[in-house]
Amino acid sequence: MFVVIGERINTSRAAMKAAVEVRDADAIRLEATKQEAAGAAYLDVNAGARYGHEAEDMRWLLEVIQPVVGIPLCLDSPDPAVLDMAFGLVEKRPMVNSISLESERYQTMLPFLEGKDCAVIALCMDDTGLPLSADDVVDRAARLAAGLEGIGVARDAIYVDPLIQPIATDQSKGLMVLDAVARIRAELPGIHFTCGLSNISYGLPQRRLVNRMFLGLLMAAGLDGAIIDPLDEALMGSMTATDMLLGNDEFCSAFLTGVRAGRVVS
Amino acid sequence: MFVVIGERINTSRAAMKAAVEVRDADAIRLEATKQEAAGAAYLDVNAGARYGHEAEDMRWLLEVIQPVVGIPLCLDSPDPAVLDMAFGLVEKRPMVNSISLESERYQTMLPFLEGKDCAVIALCMDDTGLPLSADDVVDRAARLAAGLEGIGVARDAIYVDPLIQPIATDQSKGLMVLDAVARIRAELPGIHFTCGLSNISYGLPQRRLVNRMFLGLLMAAGLDGAIIDPLDEALMGSMTATDMLLGNDEFCSAFLTGVRAGRVVS
Repeated sequence: MFVVIGERINTSRAAMKAAVEVRDADAIRLEATKQEAAGAAYLDVNAGARYGHEAEDMRWLLEVIQPVVGIPLCLDSPDPAVLDMAFGLVEKRPMVNSISLESERYQTMLPFLEGKDCAVIALCMDDTGLPLSADDVVDRAARLAAGLEGIGVARDAIYVDPLIQPIATDQSKGLMVLDAVARIRAELPGIHFTCGLSNISYGLPQRRLVNRMFLGLLMAAGLDGAIIDPLDEALMGSMTATDMLLGNDEFCSAFLTGVRAGRVVS
Repeated sequence: MFVVIGERINTSRAAMKAAVEVRDADAIRLEATKQEAAGAAYLDVNAGARYGHEAEDMRWLLEVIQPVVGIPLCLDSPDPAVLDMAFGLVEKRPMVNSISLESERYQTMLPFLEGKDCAVIALCMDDTGLPLSADDVVDRAARLAAGLEGIGVARDAIYVDPLIQPIATDQSKGLMVLDAVARIRAELPGIHFTCGLSNISYGLPQRRLVNRMFLGLLMAAGLDGAIIDPLDEALMGSMTATDMLLGNDEFCSAFLTGVRAGRVVS
């Protein structure tokens, strides 16, 4: 089962920032319910864009969203104080977005996560920046897993983000991530993945084509989740078709149901 | 470099059968030049549909096509007499479609191919029918390669067709072929592939979506050729994007050229 984390409720999007500013609850509820209906397993909630208002905006978003959806939230903040407040409000086991190997984030997030009942996104980022090779990604994923398991986080609560980088800057960046995902899948069995898919096509035309084809390749390598827009029907159709082609859809039933519902399109 | 064998000049298509019947050379020339312009590396030519007229139809097709294209032909016939005549007419090193392990075809094609300067498609079909497992595909490919190499055909002149079967009949048919392609690539280094891609989606809706996503997965496994319609822009765009994502397109130049020319579309 591929885990779609719906990315739309993020105040870095102008429409969401505006809706949060004027407390337009209907606009937020619509984004929430549409993403759930389209197949999201989690809703990412990021209230970071209005400087100085993150905590109050996050609180309001959680109060607006939770009554109208049946899926858990992915709490997207670097601030343990904001996350702590959010943990007091969530009704379902959340995902936390995110820990990384960057010293400051690692040292604040690790103690925060200890004893919490949640899933966690682990970014393969450290103080030197982005990973430079598949070895580098695999090594960082292993260190993140070791650190998290050391404080009692279960392997299958960890969602590694291998940090997809633009193919336009270096033609090897696609294979680097595909190789890293396959190796992490083999070396850390039971671990999950997520990714910022659209980074692959940064700087290129026809980005949606590039994104959907890369999603297929990533799924074949073992990637089982992504932070994406579940309302992007072409992308969701590609995901559903690929899941079927990889043998995960008995009798093609999810694919056929999606086609009949008009969700699986070319 | 992915080898596209253009499938359109085949008398099993009603329009082509009609054009051959009335000797409409312009219609054939247009199919030939359009496929070359769209990126075909070979043009398949199949004149088998008009019973009793295959030899004369093939001869006429070769005479019409060859003056207007710069790419070689893929001679698609089970009849060594037709192929022999065609070999006397071709101006560029052709591909032969095809040999298989079916007794009658194997025993007529193997002696025919001995000493011929051509590429050859080797279908993983035997007297028992379609392959039932990845092991079966790998075994058949190895036997075909051994037979062909035994009469002097070079490894890199062989294009294995693993025989794609519909995912609708059995959800394992996708992984079976993906696994077989990766293993043949490893066990028979230097060998090439082709396939009848659209078999995967037989019996399903949204066939073009399924075909294009499976093409991406096959390319990641090592498939480097297919018999397809090069005028299917969505499929060709998927191929070009995937080739880039797999690290085969320095500076994304083929992709960017294709986008500018309007050939690479979502």
